[in-house]
Amino acid sequence: MNNGNKGNVLVMQSGGCTPVINRSLTGVAQEAFQHREIGTVYGASHGLEGILSQKLLDLGQLSKADWSRVARTPGAALGSTRHKLQPEENEVIINTLAQHDVRYLFTIGGNDSAGTGHSLGLTARQAGYDLTVINVPKTIDNDLVLTDHSPGYGSAARFVALSAIGAGQDARAMGLASPITIIEVMGRDTGWLAASAALARQKEGDAPHLICVPEVPIEEDHFMARIEDAYRRYGFAVAVIAENTRGPNGVLGGNQEPWWTDDFGHAYYEEPGRYLSGLVTRKLKVRARYEKPGTIQRSFMEALSRSDVKEADMVGRAAVRYALEGETDQIVTLVREPGQKYVCTTGLAPLKQVAGLVKTMPEKYLDSANSYVTEEFLDYLRPLVGAPLPRYSSIG
Amino acid sequence: MNNGNKGNVLVMQSGGCTPVINRSLTGVAQEAFQHREIGTVYGASHGLEGILSQKLLDLGQLSKADWSRVARTPGAALGSTRHKLQPEENEVIINTLAQHDVRYLFTIGGNDSAGTGHSLGLTARQAGYDLTVINVPKTIDNDLVLTDHSPGYGSAARFVALSAIGAGQDARAMGLASPITIIEVMGRDTGWLAASAALARQKEGDAPHLICVPEVPIEEDHFMARIEDAYRRYGFAVAVIAENTRGPNGVLGGNQEPWWTDDFGHAYYEEPGRYLSGLVTRKLKVRARYEKPGTIQRSFMEALSRSDVKEADMVGRAAVRYALEGETDQIVTLVREPGQKYVCTTGLAPLKQVAGLVKTMPEKYLDSANSYVTEEFLDYLRPLVGAPLPRYSSIG
Repeated sequence: MNNGNKGNVLVMQSGGCTPVINRSLTGVAQEAFQHREIGTVYGASHGLEGILSQKLLDLGQLSKADWSRVARTPGAALGSTRHKLQPEENEVIINTLAQHDVRYLFTIGGNDSAGTGHSLGLTARQAGYDLTVINVPKTIDNDLVLTDHSPGYGSAARFVALSAIGAGQDARAMGLASPITIIEVMGRDTGWLAASAALARQKEGDAPHLICVPEVPIEEDHFMARIEDAYRRYGFAVAVIAENTRGPNGVLGGNQEPWWTDDFGHAYYEEPGRYLSGLVTRKLKVRARYEKPGTIQRSFMEALSRSDVKEADMVGRAAVRYALEGETDQIVTLVREPGQKYVCTTGLAPLKQVAGLVKTMPEKYLDSANSYVTEEFLDYLRPLVGAPLPRYSSIG
Repeated sequence: MNNGNKGNVLVMQSGGCTPVINRSLTGVAQEAFQHREIGTVYGASHGLEGILSQKLLDLGQLSKADWSRVARTPGAALGSTRHKLQPEENEVIINTLAQHDVRYLFTIGGNDSAGTGHSLGLTARQAGYDLTVINVPKTIDNDLVLTDHSPGYGSAARFVALSAIGAGQDARAMGLASPITIIEVMGRDTGWLAASAALARQKEGDAPHLICVPEVPIEEDHFMARIEDAYRRYGFAVAVIAENTRGPNGVLGGNQEPWWTDDFGHAYYEEPGRYLSGLVTRKLKVRARYEKPGTIQRSFMEALSRSDVKEADMVGRAAVRYALEGETDQIVTLVREPGQKYVCTTGLAPLKQVAGLVKTMPEKYLDSANSYVTEEFLDYLRPLVGAPLPRYSSIG
């Protein structure tokens, strides 16, 4: 029902979680509560799934204490989804939005969600239903185009860099007992997150010694030579591998058998980090550990980046203000202002120009010959992870 | 050289690292610096390896700033070792100690190191060389006997519990997309660390839903039934598995082939968490993630337990004072004083009564029928992880 307002809000969360996706949710909700033009603020349980099953929650019921706790909760507090919008569902969804007089749709999501938002906006227009669609960016993968970076990336990057410090110092200390560690990091199509481990290196010889990203296929001989070189030189070696890093001909270790093939014929191969740790163990005859923090890297709330937390809230609030200013069919972007000091503001990009696209790491950020990243990348990354990382130091 | 003192100190670190093993090192050194009876304080690079290769470092050279950084550094700042003392090395080591007039030997280590310490003390006595040997306990595994708990455990337990909160909320949020997560946790022979994940559960239905420990062999049917039950009931399921959890007949999935057999004929089998995630994926036809934080769980310095930090320093300092009081051939223990409020002091136990022994989880701490732990265990654990864990809350 419309009680004299322009309409109600629906907010949803979609795709993989980030440690700050709930900051964007609270940003959207808190901003929406402040505007008279907006009536009820609904949240969809598990995104599209919740709209399709009519599970819309009235977020006005939450207390101030609830919101404070939600902002600090890992995962996606409303529930997320990887449901892909089917053409026949467009109309069902618009009908549900109309039933609830939803006039503002905010999706906190990545490049898949951008496509969904654009499609729903189009369907609404065709049906003559007045609907404003603004997406709020999020992804630890940092692979959204047209934005300087994505909320969620800075905190996950901080976790990965801190993990590389810890696992690196552990491998250095363990010496002969288990001198090599391979850490497998998330990143569906890109190496942005794996690359962030480079912040762990504070002086010559520190971990990580190699960073492998999907943008550069791994040559096994090159990988082995570089690991062995670091091991001989420093007494230990740490490699950080993006989860979808591949060899020149696809899956690493080309002729390996899948460990499982599902009913749809999708083949599941050994994880690249595990494969490589086996390779190193067999060839160098020393213990190579394989570590995989998995979803922990996107949900560990003791390693948040302060700037990321702030920006996640900022993009949520900005989305509401842009919507009320009449913008639609857009995603909020983060804009790094020119100058020495890091200053970040918001902008907008058309959903259609973001949907389904992937921003890979540019060549200037990659030192492919050395399986590493450049100083220019580190300059890009540093302000995103918040406070400077702790200094560490060994004696032996 | 002995400059009028009773002799010099040698401190070393041994076995797997903990996030606070360097707090014990600084505790030993800072305490030793304060006593006139002690001359030079040496540190052995990589433990026994460093003594055998004469790599002894004068720790008096470090500045106050160095020590402050070392205390906050992950890994073992002196370098660690898993070298097992060979009978013929006893004499070589005592000779090196005598050359450096080392009269006090402090080893920060676990149950293997207790054996080493006892053996070196015995050799010195037989050779008529006056040597005081006191060990300083450390292990994230918490498997030392005759102590209430071990320094290092509380911080690693805090990391594991926070990881289970994060990965649990992530699995809950992802719902249909990837509803099941299996986290594999360290613990060579025992489930103490895996069991600490139970602190993550703050209300009915929260993760973790199962905790599997080496003390209780996994029956695959039972495991599958419980995972499926949690999944049907809550829409997601999280299991935490100790790395050496086994089946009733040894390796899980008894008839699986080793993925590698080394030159000594040691067979390497698939990790239990990975094996079980494959099993779940195939049987329930939903994505079951396998996460393995590995050495990150024992080196992540943003998740330290305050009480653990304090106690790690305390046992280091106590070792020096006990040595100066004339104690030898002992390991410092932690003693939980009776009473409501948690108060922890130090005691001593003979190295011989600790060497090579493993403290498994007692039956009163295990709820085997439900693959879980008891309230009594949680009461034991809570004071060890420091500040109460953050409260979290979902909306959907």
